Amino acid sequence: MDVGVLTVVLGGEPLEDALEYLSGIGVDAVELGCGGFVGDDHLPREEYLDDDDAQAELLELVEANGLRISALSTHNNPLHPDDGRADRAVEEIEETVRLADQLGVDNVNTFSGLPAGSPAGEVPNWITAPWPPEHAEALDYQWEEVAIPRWSDIADHAVDHDVNVCLEMHPNMLVYEPTGLLRLREATNERIGANFDPSHLYWQGIDVIEAIRYLGERDAIHHFHAKDTGLYESNARVKGYLDTNPYTDEPNRSWLFRSIGYGHDEAHWKEVVSTLRMVGYEDALSIEHEDSLTSGREGLEKAVDVLERAVFETEPGEAYWA
Amino acid sequence: MDVGVLTVVLGGEPLEDALEYLSGIGVDAVELGCGGFVGDDHLPREEYLDDDDAQAELLELVEANGLRISALSTHNNPLHPDDGRADRAVEEIEETVRLADQLGVDNVNTFSGLPAGSPAGEVPNWITAPWPPEHAEALDYQWEEVAIPRWSDIADHAVDHDVNVCLEMHPNMLVYEPTGLLRLREATNERIGANFDPSHLYWQGIDVIEAIRYLGERDAIHHFHAKDTGLYESNARVKGYLDTNPYTDEPNRSWLFRSIGYGHDEAHWKEVVSTLRMVGYEDALSIEHEDSLTSGREGLEKAVDVLERAVFETEPGEAYWA
Amino acid sequence: MDVGVLTVVLGGEPLEDALEYLSGIGVDAVELGCGGFVGDDHLPREEYLDDDDAQAELLELVEANGLRISALSTHNNPLHPDDGRADRAVEEIEETVRLADQLGVDNVNTFSGLPAGSPAGEVPNWITAPWPPEHAEALDYQWEEVAIPRWSDIADHAVDHDVNVCLEMHPNMLVYEPTGLLRLREATNERIGANFDPSHLYWQGIDVIEAIRYLGERDAIHHFHAKDTGLYESNARVKGYLDTNPYTDEPNRSWLFRSIGYGHDEAHWKEVVSTLRMVGYEDALSIEHEDSLTSGREGLEKAVDVLERAVFETEPGEAYWA
Amino acid sequence: MDVGVLTVVLGGEPLEDALEYLSGIGVDAVELGCGGFVGDDHLPREEYLDDDDAQAELLELVEANGLRISALSTHNNPLHPDDGRADRAVEEIEETVRLADQLGVDNVNTFSGLPAGSPAGEVPNWITAPWPPEHAEALDYQWEEVAIPRWSDIADHAVDHDVNVCLEMHPNMLVYEPTGLLRLREATNERIGANFDPSHLYWQGIDVIEAIRYLGERDAIHHFHAKDTGLYESNARVKGYLDTNPYTDEPNRSWLFRSIGYGHDEAHWKEVVSTLRMVGYEDALSIEHEDSLTSGREGLEKAVDVLERAVFETEPGEAYWA
Amino acid sequence: MDVGVLTVVLGGEPLEDALEYLSGIGVDAVELGCGGFVGDDHLPREEYLDDDDAQAELLELVEANGLRISALSTHNNPLHPDDGRADRAVEEIEETVRLADQLGVDNVNTFSGLPAGSPAGEVPNWITAPWPPEHAEALDYQWEEVAIPRWSDIADHAVDHDVNVCLEMHPNMLVYEPTGLLRLREATNERIGANFDPSHLYWQGIDVIEAIRYLGERDAIHHFHAKDTGLYESNARVKGYLDTNPYTDEPNRSWLFRSIGYGHDEAHWKEVVSTLRMVGYEDALSIEHEDSLTSGREGLEKAVDVLERAVFETEPGEAYWA
Amino acid sequence: MDVGVLTVVLGGEPLEDALEYLSGIGVDAVELGCGGFVGDDHLPREEYLDDDDAQAELLELVEANGLRISALSTHNNPLHPDDGRADRAVEEIEETVRLADQLGVDNVNTFSGLPAGSPAGEVPNWITAPWPPEHAEALDYQWEEVAIPRWSDIADHAVDHDVNVCLEMHPNMLVYEPTGLLRLREATNERIGANFDPSHLYWQGIDVIEAIRYLGERDAIHHFHAKDTGLYESNARVKGYLDTNPYTDEPNRSWLFRSIGYGHDEAHWKEVVSTLRMVGYEDALSIEHEDSLTSGREGLEKAVDVLERAVFETEPGEAYWA
Repeated sequence: MDVGVLTVVLGGEPLEDALEYLSGIGVDAVELGCGGFVGDDHLPREEYLDDDDAQAELLELVEANGLRISALSTHNNPLHPDDGRADRAVEEIEETVRLADQLGVDNVNTFSGLPAGSPAGEVPNWITAPWPPEHAEALDYQWEEVAIPRWSDIADHAVDHDVNVCLEMHPNMLVYEPTGLLRLREATNERIGANFDPSHLYWQGIDVIEAIRYLGERDAIHHFHAKDTGLYESNARVKGYLDTNPYTDEPNRSWLFRSIGYGHDEAHWKEVVSTLRMVGYEDALSIEHEDSLTSGREGLEKAVDVLERAVFETEPGEAYWA
Repeated sequence: MDVGVLTVVLGGEPLEDALEYLSGIGVDAVELGCGGFVGDDHLPREEYLDDDDAQAELLELVEANGLRISALSTHNNPLHPDDGRADRAVEEIEETVRLADQLGVDNVNTFSGLPAGSPAGEVPNWITAPWPPEHAEALDYQWEEVAIPRWSDIADHAVDHDVNVCLEMHPNMLVYEPTGLLRLREATNERIGANFDPSHLYWQGIDVIEAIRYLGERDAIHHFHAKDTGLYESNARVKGYLDTNPYTDEPNRSWLFRSIGYGHDEAHWKEVVSTLRMVGYEDALSIEHEDSLTSGREGLEKAVDVLERAVFETEPGEAYWA
Repeated sequence: MDVGVLTVVLGGEPLEDALEYLSGIGVDAVELGCGGFVGDDHLPREEYLDDDDAQAELLELVEANGLRISALSTHNNPLHPDDGRADRAVEEIEETVRLADQLGVDNVNTFSGLPAGSPAGEVPNWITAPWPPEHAEALDYQWEEVAIPRWSDIADHAVDHDVNVCLEMHPNMLVYEPTGLLRLREATNERIGANFDPSHLYWQGIDVIEAIRYLGERDAIHHFHAKDTGLYESNARVKGYLDTNPYTDEPNRSWLFRSIGYGHDEAHWKEVVSTLRMVGYEDALSIEHEDSLTSGREGLEKAVDVLERAVFETEPGEAYWA
Repeated sequence: MDVGVLTVVLGGEPLEDALEYLSGIGVDAVELGCGGFVGDDHLPREEYLDDDDAQAELLELVEANGLRISALSTHNNPLHPDDGRADRAVEEIEETVRLADQLGVDNVNTFSGLPAGSPAGEVPNWITAPWPPEHAEALDYQWEEVAIPRWSDIADHAVDHDVNVCLEMHPNMLVYEPTGLLRLREATNERIGANFDPSHLYWQGIDVIEAIRYLGERDAIHHFHAKDTGLYESNARVKGYLDTNPYTDEPNRSWLFRSIGYGHDEAHWKEVVSTLRMVGYEDALSIEHEDSLTSGREGLEKAVDVLERAVFETEPGEAYWA
Repeated sequence: MDVGVLTVVLGGEPLEDALEYLSGIGVDAVELGCGGFVGDDHLPREEYLDDDDAQAELLELVEANGLRISALSTHNNPLHPDDGRADRAVEEIEETVRLADQLGVDNVNTFSGLPAGSPAGEVPNWITAPWPPEHAEALDYQWEEVAIPRWSDIADHAVDHDVNVCLEMHPNMLVYEPTGLLRLREATNERIGANFDPSHLYWQGIDVIEAIRYLGERDAIHHFHAKDTGLYESNARVKGYLDTNPYTDEPNRSWLFRSIGYGHDEAHWKEVVSTLRMVGYEDALSIEHEDSLTSGREGLEKAVDVLERAVFETEPGEAYWA
Repeated sequence: MDVGVLTVVLGGEPLEDALEYLSGIGVDAVELGCGGFVGDDHLPREEYLDDDDAQAELLELVEANGLRISALSTHNNPLHPDDGRADRAVEEIEETVRLADQLGVDNVNTFSGLPAGSPAGEVPNWITAPWPPEHAEALDYQWEEVAIPRWSDIADHAVDHDVNVCLEMHPNMLVYEPTGLLRLREATNERIGANFDPSHLYWQGIDVIEAIRYLGERDAIHHFHAKDTGLYESNARVKGYLDTNPYTDEPNRSWLFRSIGYGHDEAHWKEVVSTLRMVGYEDALSIEHEDSLTSGREGLEKAVDVLERAVFETEPGEAYWA
């Protein structure tokens, strides 16, 4: 298992510097943003797509730093009620799939996206409770009339390119928890799976270890984001975990993205690693730094420190005691 | 403190029979539905409004059974994107306030309602996470442009009639947790407070005892619904508590409305009662039966049984040991 | 769901008196012992088998007390290394199945039994850990060479008589936990299922609610024993739950059979009842009294008191709020 | 085991009425105050001491109501720095012992008392932490120079009269937890034991079940007070359990005396009863009502209700299943 | 945030050596004792006060080792019943404040002190429970007649010198928990705040994270002591946390001071650091080594190791994901 | 306290290489297998016994690497129903004791062994529950007729050689928990004690810290195995901890041996170390690597990493703060 990093956190630095720095702090793999919310600072998609030389140069640079690319990522909303935005998002994903294929990268990370509650709506509508009944009806519309048709096309495209499309289960997205992910996977094909990012699951009450077992036993974990979340009971006792406060109003939030080890302890991350190995996942743990209480570099280094103690780099030998 | 019942569960029976039955099982107060989701089987609003005789007869009947009316209720969506539905809901609430005034009833229970995410939307949009930013913006629209103006009018009306409007914090409603309730109360007036129904709070991760203290210390609890919720970790471990399954798919739900005592134990209800007394609430605990695992009458009787053991009927004496 | 009682605890009294007493304290069903460890005080198998008159009289007596028979029981070891004892146990089970058929009783409760570790052994050998390897080998012998052949015959006999054979998962028996039960069921037929007695599961670290879901979803719960177990951490901290002290050395035991409500609280029993209903079990909760800290009658009455508050006697109505 | 009541809570009523009322709600035994903090409303010590007729009349009255006297009580401070108060307290205890002997009552309940920190002090000084060292020295003074000498005399007196002196472990008393109780018992004699009142132990972090085992295995539980305490984490999180607020400032206290069942659930009281039986205690559970959230009668009735469901009235039969 | 050390643990070594050693193990700041319980080995107050040269030399030495002085400390009892001791303690504090001012050090750490229970008393009397009433009265005397007058003077002196006086909430001191600290702060001025040392709070049942939030939101944390406490349930189950055994009787104590990481895990210290940052505290975490199970140097090094992984050295960047 | 390693995990390497490697990763002591289940790769017993030169060479080699030998180990079944195997096991133990004596090694680690359930049995029979009664009788046979006589001889032999025989409490062995260990110790002599290996205790529900206190206070811990166990609730909820699945079927097991830190967190190991020191154990923590999820070397290195942070290498100084 490799310790990886989504390089967006170093977006202000040239890729060369970022890779050298990462290599120096013990990182083994990188995930590169090429569009959508994560930007494309380190991999401007249009420049690299279909350009063999640029691609070769990139791969050389990565390898020269002793790294590999575990995934490309382009987080966006391909189901957005604004058709223009939705189409652009689909195009981003499909081009990224094509680029991944050309670069020999297995995985493309993205979001499922989220439609409005009906064709007339302009704002995506995240539905998380079934009553009054118009909410259940709107949810049905979102799945049947928007999501499944559009994702069927993307999934076919992914099959054509032998690339996994890895969805991050995320609030304000149609796919926000494991059973929804499986529903989309079953309605499309097995190239659709998870970029399993636990940070959005903790505050939903999901047991991350169980969720890894559940998706892993169904071979539905394609990639993994190492990102932690702190739950702040002090606030949750009064207002719960459905928290609409800005992410930067830290003292008043019920949950916050945190550097690895600041939301859950090292023992938890060891259990995450062990469970991933039990269900057969051996790819990267790609650190996504989003901690508003410290700087990017400090957060990254702390994350690498914890994960290096947790991760297994060798294969098990024979169990002579069994 | 009285044990009360929202009589909707007995909606199929004439009011006379319902009251006699309730009185017989030890109930002290009733809450009568007069519109909206709860219907008006026992108190058709239009028939009773401004009709002194009908009102006198009702009050006599109630009193003859040794009961009193703790609240009227009309749950609806006064912020609905469909203007017709919204206006009807406002009218229902305002008429119910007027009827309460005429009947000498202190409290009218309802929901805050929920707008769409923008003026063009047709479906209410429940916003529970702040990112991507268009969700935060839509939330701002809902509060500033829809909810506060409309509720300011209703709140003024409530002041005119000396009646409390008691909001049930509820999923798929703008006001779903205590800090949101206070926000609306502060933007309007103190007639707006809670019909504190814990059943929608448990699965949000709210500590009901702390929430009672929080609102109670601010005098913002006007009425109380005794309704329990079971949390089913077996399902939540994998999919969390944001559960869109129908309420009747019991084995697969992460939470279910349950009869009092089936979601939380008797000790919890004793602590609820004690904390309500600590913060000065002495009105009814009005049982709202919604348990899809048993019949209405059995659920009610079990609820009354637990609450009677929990509730305090007398005032504290002097603490001679202090 | 009925509150039932296994009448062995009243074995010193004539059946007439026992039934009258039980009826008087609110019991709805009885389970009668007819051989094996539980004795046959109230239903001497040989006297009743094939005797229509005796049977008619029995059924009349039961009915006259407003009761019904939920199961017959004959707990023994049909896999005992002593062939004589094993054969007698098989005969007891098969005759009891026949008697149940004749009496129109659906269920016969018993144990799976336990062989020795090899053909030469004289003492049943309960294997609960896989290493050193001779233990795993002995376990294989027990299943493949002893249990499956013998139970296939009994299961066929049960099919012939349309009677369920309900195994109590029990320490010192081959079937002691749910996956073992399913293994035997799958190797035989669906007449083999559980007489789900939670009391032997608590100290194994099994979550009884999860175990009910697990077996219930597979339709493998045929009958239910309401029996509680107290876990005594004070002792378990030092010596764990694998406790060979006599059941009557109460202060030093890590676990003890207890009256319902003395091992787990009322809320637990309400959750048991709710989960049974969720998975479709609606037969009796048959109280087996074995509490060495109080008398049989007091223990029974306390158990009935708790279960009556927990159990559902009516069917759910329509969920008008869904 | 009997459900008893310390009748101080009914001190405003004549003893006749109090006994009749208690008998009517299912109480089996009474504890009568005859001096000190608990007053002597129902048993003015001086009137009854050495007066055979008065005593006979009292015993008749008690018996006529189907009750018995489980203990006399006179809570005071026999170690008070004010010699007059201390001597009076000793006299009260010794006279109560004598009266108990005359009435055939086994137990006299009281406090250990508490000295000042040195001979010059005027205020009792409760020492609960060893540093700075002058506190440890003062504690040594309290035990060696004050408590042991004075209690040796009282304990001899108790031996002379064959009466147990039962100390309630209590804050602001020298004996406030089990090891301190044993220290005094070992320094005197075995007539000194506990009137085990769990209410003062919960907030010290003591596990009441373990404490019962610990003292019970050493035969040091002579009597038992059934009194509950609520722990209010909401306050304790910030200020801990060392709470000097008045008992009547309920919303701001970290712990409060509560009616049985309002501090700890019924399952706890069942475990208390079971553990008492395990260690051989079979005398009364004497309810001391001190709940500032409800009236004396309501609190008593709720306590009796819970304890009657918890308590064992019969002796265990033979464990036929062992 | 800096990792600091209270250098008393190295009191046997010359300051030069101590600073060099500390610098070598990664420490950033020091706290120097200059009187009271902590001694003045490294900063003999009298020698340095008003001596510009000595002070310049000290500051140079500190700086030369890459360190800074986060606080001076002089723990004593300025409210002691022995007037001489009290006056000496006040003088120590006031001189230390003056010295801090001269050295440009922001904080002076000390205790609140503790009076006797009345003017005649010779032994400080720590009052932690309100009944019998003479204890509440004595507490009133301590605050109103002793503490507030004396601390008003000290607080004025602190204002004059622009130095914070930081009280360590401590058993056997009047100020032992956060609400008491605020009471003294409110009765004096805002120079009085906390030297927040969690080690004395854990065993009181205080939630250290909540307590940091509580005081931090009120700007009342001036300095922080990194000191851990182990809670030993094995002993506390029987005797609770009010433990008067000597600190060196480790196996029998309910709580012990421990090296950072031996009482609470690394995740806890990360949460401490995060919460301090949330409430705006960015000064030193000053390690006070008092662990009777290991040597000073080993304890220090282990503490530095844990804190360096926990502490944030950089400022947060922009939250580009928000 | 030393960090040690049982070198079996490096059995495929020459002893020279193994020692050099271990020394290089920070290990202080080794435990060498010389027979039984652990093999004798690094210390072929027969070659070394009575051979002064070979022994001197071994000790030199060990010392040259800065190591010492904390124990020899020969795990086997000296009570096996097959007399040949039992006699061989006894011989192995006794020869190893002799070899330890010759090498100046204090401890020999082994198992208690396990008999069949009666003289005719061929398979060891692990008895962990008392009913049906033939199991209790068989247990009596195992102790009285097999174990005590045989172990009395071995214990005498250990006394003769001044060597401790250290039993690993282990499933499928007669001595599997602390009270059983003490029983054997009391029936023989004090040379019989524990090689305390927590890994077999966790899943029995034993609190390892309490068990260390319990045995340590009785001076019955002679040696310590640092080996961790993961408990997998996900499986245990349904089937409990009595798991007969092969150790290599990881995803379906309820517990697995794990590398230190992967079953219990660092804070636990710090508490283990602290408690060992409290009860006076200062010998090695000998790592036994058996983790089927990673390689031997990686597991060892992770274990050493955690233990080095946990272990105390220095003696406590004076507690100047006490």
